[in-house]
Parts: sequence; C-alpha cells; structure tokens
Amino acid sequence: MSLDAVLSRLDAEMPKATERLFELLRIASISTDPAYKSDCERAADWLVADLQSMGITAEKRKTPGHPMVVGHADGPGPHLLFYGHYDVQPVDPIELWNNDPFDPKLEQTEKGPVLRGRGTADDKGQLMTFLEACRAWKAEHGALPCKITFFFEGEEESGSPSLVPFMEENSDELRADLALICDTAMFESKTPAIVTMLRGMMSDEITITGPDKDLHSGYYGGIAMNPIRVLSRVIAALHDETGRVTIPDFYDGVPDLSADMQAQWASLGFDHKQFLGDVDLSVPAGEAGVTPLEMTWSRPTCEVNGIWGGYIGEGFKTVLPSQAHAKISFRLVGDQDPHAIRENFRAMVQSLLPPDCTASFVEHGASEACVIDAGDPRFDKALAALSAEWGVPAAYIGGGGSIPIAGHFQDILNTKPLLIGFGKDDDGLHSPNEKYDLESFHKGARSWVRILAALT
Amino acid sequence: MSLDAVLSRLDAEMPKATERLFELLRIASISTDPAYKSDCERAADWLVADLQSMGITAEKRKTPGHPMVVGHADGPGPHLLFYGHYDVQPVDPIELWNNDPFDPKLEQTEKGPVLRGRGTADDKGQLMTFLEACRAWKAEHGALPCKITFFFEGEEESGSPSLVPFMEENSDELRADLALICDTAMFESKTPAIVTMLRGMMSDEITITGPDKDLHSGYYGGIAMNPIRVLSRVIAALHDETGRVTIPDFYDGVPDLSADMQAQWASLGFDHKQFLGDVDLSVPAGEAGVTPLEMTWSRPTCEVNGIWGGYIGEGFKTVLPSQAHAKISFRLVGDQDPHAIRENFRAMVQSLLPPDCTASFVEHGASEACVIDAGDPRFDKALAALSAEWGVPAAYIGGGGSIPIAGHFQDILNTKPLLIGFGKDDDGLHSPNEKYDLESFHKGARSWVRILAALT
Repeated sequence: MSLDAVLSRLDAEMPKATERLFELLRIASISTDPAYKSDCERAADWLVADLQSMGITAEKRKTPGHPMVVGHADGPGPHLLFYGHYDVQPVDPIELWNNDPFDPKLEQTEKGPVLRGRGTADDKGQLMTFLEACRAWKAEHGALPCKITFFFEGEEESGSPSLVPFMEENSDELRADLALICDTAMFESKTPAIVTMLRGMMSDEITITGPDKDLHSGYYGGIAMNPIRVLSRVIAALHDETGRVTIPDFYDGVPDLSADMQAQWASLGFDHKQFLGDVDLSVPAGEAGVTPLEMTWSRPTCEVNGIWGGYIGEGFKTVLPSQAHAKISFRLVGDQDPHAIRENFRAMVQSLLPPDCTASFVEHGASEACVIDAGDPRFDKALAALSAEWGVPAAYIGGGGSIPIAGHFQDILNTKPLLIGFGKDDDGLHSPNEKYDLESFHKGARSWVRILAALT
Repeated sequence: MSLDAVLSRLDAEMPKATERLFELLRIASISTDPAYKSDCERAADWLVADLQSMGITAEKRKTPGHPMVVGHADGPGPHLLFYGHYDVQPVDPIELWNNDPFDPKLEQTEKGPVLRGRGTADDKGQLMTFLEACRAWKAEHGALPCKITFFFEGEEESGSPSLVPFMEENSDELRADLALICDTAMFESKTPAIVTMLRGMMSDEITITGPDKDLHSGYYGGIAMNPIRVLSRVIAALHDETGRVTIPDFYDGVPDLSADMQAQWASLGFDHKQFLGDVDLSVPAGEAGVTPLEMTWSRPTCEVNGIWGGYIGEGFKTVLPSQAHAKISFRLVGDQDPHAIRENFRAMVQSLLPPDCTASFVEHGASEACVIDAGDPRFDKALAALSAEWGVPAAYIGGGGSIPIAGHFQDILNTKPLLIGFGKDDDGLHSPNEKYDLESFHKGARSWVRILAALT
C-alpha cells in the first residue's frame, strides 16, 4: 500500500485544504445562541456537500435542535465511526478579538504559522483533518481502506441535548468496530497523544432573589439583605482552605489514581510552569497535595463561569439589586454522579441562604466522566502511527475537558472510542483569538492517513 | 400677609404645574452616561428659562462637567439659598419599566394618584415644589418675601465632581443665611420631616485579574485560579457573622447614638415590618443588636452595587475568565474618614489575594457624613409650618442616603442646611417605575409657601 503517495498528495493539497476549512469557518455556527440557528443549518449543509463531493453518501438529519450530519462510505475490513462537531462557542468578549472571528486568516507568528478564527481548533479544524485524510486517500486509491461512517454534531457547545436520543434511535446505523473522535489536544506542543480519561460535567445556573425590586442603597442599605453578598458567600463556601469542594458527598466515586498511572504521568515530565506561564500564572491553584497534572486530568473541580447582578455599566449607581446570578459548572471524574451532585449542590445553596432570600436554578447539562481501557492492540497501533508521523513517542494521557460522546459511544453503541486530536494548550479554545497551528492541521491530516493504514 | 391667597392660587395652578414638571421630566438628563450630555444641557436651559419666566435673573454656568444653574431674586429679610438637582439616574434595567421612563404620566393607584417617570421623586419633582411655591407667591404678591438664590446642580447622581470647586469659586455669591435642600423623604407616608443626619459615602470599583486571557475550564479548570472565586471570597470577607464590616479601623469615628436621640427615634414608632414588607422582605439584615432605624440612619454599611465577570449571556459557556469586577460602596456616619476607609479597604483586598491574582481599583467618589445641629429657632418654625400643612406633628429624623452638598454648605459657605423633602419610601428612587405622589408634589409646594412665610 503506497502510504507515501497519499501523504505526498495531502502535502500538495494543503493550500486547497486550508481554503476549504476557511469556507466552513466563515459560517458563524454558534449553537448556544438561537440567533445563529440558520448558520448552524448552513454549516451542516456545507459538510453534507463536502462529503458528497468525495463520492460519499451523506445527508442532514433533523433533530429538535440543530441537525446531525451522517455519511457512509462502504469498504472492506473494520467499520470505523468518525465523530466531530461543526458548532462553535460564542465570541464575546468580541472587543478582545484582533480580527473578525468569522473571517479566518493564515497568520505568521513567532511559533510558526497559525489558522486564526473561531472554531479553528474547536472543532472545525480538527474535524477537517480527518476529511482531508479521507479525500487524499480516495483520490489516490479510488476508495477508502475500510467502511467508514461520518457523524457530525451541531450542539456540542450547548450541552448536546439531541445527541443521546439520536444515537438511541439510530444505533444500528451508527454502531461500528471502533469510534474515532477528533476533539482533544496533544500532550504539550510536540507530543501527540491518545486520551483515555475524560472529565464529565454538571452545570447549573443560580439566581438569588432578595428584595422584590431594585432598591436605593441609601434608603435600604443596612436593613435590606443584598443578594450579591449572599451569592458571594455561597460561592466562597464552595471550596475550603485546601481547595477541596465542600458540597456534601462531592468526592463519592472519585478514584485514587493507580500507581501505574501515577508513574506513567510522572514520566511525561509535564511542565506546569510553562503551562501556567502561557497564561501569566505560576502557582497551581487546585487541591493541596495533588500534582498539577492530576488537577487537570483526574480531579474534579468547581468553577464559576459567569456572574452578574446590579449595575454593571459605566459610572456608578447606588442600587441594592433584587437579584444576583451565576453560572457554575463542575468537572467530574471516575464514578461521580452528576445528578446526585446537582441535588447536593442545590441543597447546600438552600442551606446557606439567610432569611428572605430565595434561590432558583436552571439546569444546563450533566455528563459522567469517561474512562477508556487502553489495553487494546488497535490503540497501540494508532499510538505507533502517531509516533511515526511526529517523530517522538506518542503518549496515553488524561484530558481535563468533557466530551460526553465518548461515554455515549461506549454505553449506547457498545463502540469503543479512540480519542486523538491535534489541539495545543495555547489554542485559546472558547477564548478570543482562537487559533489552530497549521502544523496541527497538516500533520493531523497526515496522522489520520497513517492511522487508517495501521488499523486496516 | 395673605397666606391663604397664595395657597389657593397654588391649588388652582396644579394642572399647569404638573404639565411644567412633565416638560422637565421628558428631558433624559442622565448625568453618569456621556451619551446624555446634551440632555443635561437642555435640562439646565429649561430651568434657566423657567426662572426667567418668573422674572428671576438666572443663567447657566459652565463647569468641566454638566452646567450649574444659578438664579437670584432680590428681596427684604433673610437670604435663603435653595438647592436641587436636575440630573437623574440611569434607567436600566429598562425592561422592568411599564412605560417609557421619559414619558411621564399621571397614574391612579390604590394609594392615590402618582406622577410616574424617571426623576419624578429624585429630584425634579422635589425641585419643582419650591419653584411652584415661589411662582404662586410672586404671582399673588408681585415679589418674593425675601432674598432667594436658586442653585441647581446636574451631577448629583454621578458624584458631583464640579460642585466643590464651583462653590469655592462662587462662595460670596452663594453664601446665605440658610440653605434649603429638597432631596429627602418624609418619615413614613404621612409624616413630614426635617433631616438632621445624613450618611456619607465612599465608592470604589474593583477588578480582580487572574490569567491574562479567558481560558477553557476543561483545560485549565482546577489548575488555574478563577478570579470570580477570588472576588466572591473578598466580598464574603467584608462582613463578619454578626453583620459588622471587617475592614480594619472601619468603625473609627462611628459615634454611639445619644440617649436623647434614641428616645426620640423610638417615639417615632418606625414600622420596619411595613418598610421591609413593601419590598417583600421581613428581617432587618444589618448588624446584630442594632435597631432597624439605626441600621438605615446612624450605622455605616458596605454594599455591592454591581458585579460581573465571565459569560453572562444566554445558554452556557465553560469559560474560566481572566477578570471579575464589582462596584462597592460604603455609607458612612459620624466622623468616619472616607479616604482612610478607601485605603484600608484596598489594603484588605490586597491581603486576601491568592498568588497570581492582582487587584486594581477605580475611585468613584468620597463624602463624609453630615450632622446638622437642630437647635435653631428657624428649624422649629419650619417644623411647625410642616405640621400645619400635613395636620400631624412633623419629626426630626436621620436619613440613610448621602447628600454631600449638605456638608459643603456648612464647610464651604458657612451656611446651615435645612433639609426638607416630600419623597416616600415606596417612590422607587434609582429603580424602574420611579414615582412621586401627586400629594407630595401638591402639599410639598404648599409646605414651602408656609415655610417661606414662617422664615420671613
């Protein structure tokens, strides 16, 4: 099998591949904001057309939310299922972007060329590495090396409400021998990786109400309870002095890291000073007595993702507000139960309220952590293919983010997920000026060519 | 002197007086927001024209900010200085208004007719009670009963940056025998009052910075410090379990309430259940062991007037933000020093920061509390005039709000301030759907006629 011919074709195709990615990036498919509904439709249409242009049967499939895209390419050998998502995060604070987030650019930087724009790394650029690998393979050989099902979601950044029902209704169609997911990062900037451990997430929005209207802090200050003060007390109470989360039973189901895994992670030589230094920090801020890598991979967290209340405009207004709000999320590991944690979180908030204050909640999503057994010869083959492409030993690692679909592949489709991605820590996911290294895009696509060859 | 003739003329004039007030209310003179600069100019022009229409010499006077309006009416007897402000608070949250805040209406309510709109009570309606009293007096008698200087400010709701320099530069022109200030409330809804104690204020805006950019809480959650968590801890630490403010030396200069004053306030029979019940609260939230009236009149406070950080839009975004912000103000009493408190507050915040986090501050204003010696026969005359108009004994009371100019009249002009206003607790100052009772407007103007007669 002429692997080199496919790789050479891919190299020659990169300018066109970049232009194709830019077309997709120009579609503002922000799934969480209803104002961008038609953009999400357009992104799905673009992917259907791109698959069809390769001679792959593909269609947009309706859901109560944004559509799925499903494509099928027949072939011999194992049946692979490839997953990516075409939706992106909102762009605010928009004023911190140096360019229009939806007018992608190829930029030269000190660290090399990058593709700049919302969705370059999360997840359109990653998704397209696989499509470009398939395109080159098919152009060189006339057919793909095995049966492949393509499965693209448009609600990953907004809690994936349609995903489980869709997978359950279409499980026979989607079930495969192995699922490939491209939505993760490398281990530091030069070492490719397979992720075998992902954190789950529970997210909740809380509103504290005190007085039934906004008040003047001159007339009511002192005698009326201020809901911002109450919310601050609640948030401050969520961690103890050692950085542990204080919600009752929160650590139920959190496993100790095995000695094997501890040794393997220690061997990675994670440079937390560099990792934190990239964002102008220096001290790991998690639980006392926990290594920096465990803080991001194998320990649960509690984060406030947004807070607001009272007057937040220019100048000053002496209002004593009626309400204060926060968006709070928890990253979960091991067997932590997101539903039990939501219940315990809400009960704890209620227990902290002073007289006259009430709390109300809006649920924003719940997913369990995912632990994938790496004892599989196919995983070792993929690891070897990655090592060959990047010229360094690839690593089995944990991942701090939450990719609920990895668990769903196991639970609903009985299909083992193989998580390989080419993101870097400084990509600025969910942030202004998101980028994806041109190297990630190029060598990512080349990696998939090698992995396809290794698995078939 | 035919007091009754002036009062009858005022009664007959009320429909036209209301229309005049509505003209002024339609001008959106929001002083804190630069977008409304020209509206502030128009409000000043309107007042100049209104004074001139009564035959009073008046002009708009430039400042580095919004203009002052100064008018002079010659006459015999004592020289009175009347102060009010023509600027108003911002109107957000605009969605909570039932009508356009700048399209005032006369509304019938269960409690009687009210004038509805931004500035009705704070302070355009109050200001106009005095002008209508003067207008009726002059129309009936051809001249005012004494020399009166009119002094209107347009920056009261934005910290009065131009006030002290203007008063210092024009002290000879403004100095009088007694200053009348109409920007306070009655004691409960039927009892008129003279305010002899006002709280000062120090306000500061704080920004906590952690990482130098917004991060993805999946990659960085656990290892990177979240500035919202830090800000919440700072705010939570500002009060102890008994409701006392914890800033070092904060209570320096806070006097014990004299036994006399305690007895007088106790005799007022303040119904805190009603006061709090009006805004759906029931339990006084101030310091333990302090009476509800003291909480609003004679004790200092710390309030968070606004807080924001991270993602605050629709849906959910798992951002770990770079910054979190709050607007915080302190009501001050007795001899508390706003500048020392600002310094101690900032030092305390710095002492609470974890590694890698920084705090920056923007100053928004500082004024000392004001205590006025009520042992003055003119005060008793004014009190008697109020009692006559309202048919109940008027009271000497404290006021929770901050009216820095009261102190400036004493300190800069050596002119004693007499604070009389006709606001009610449910006026919704600084809130959506602000109103001023038609009774306040009408009987307020009649009260000034009686006070002018009593003082001259």
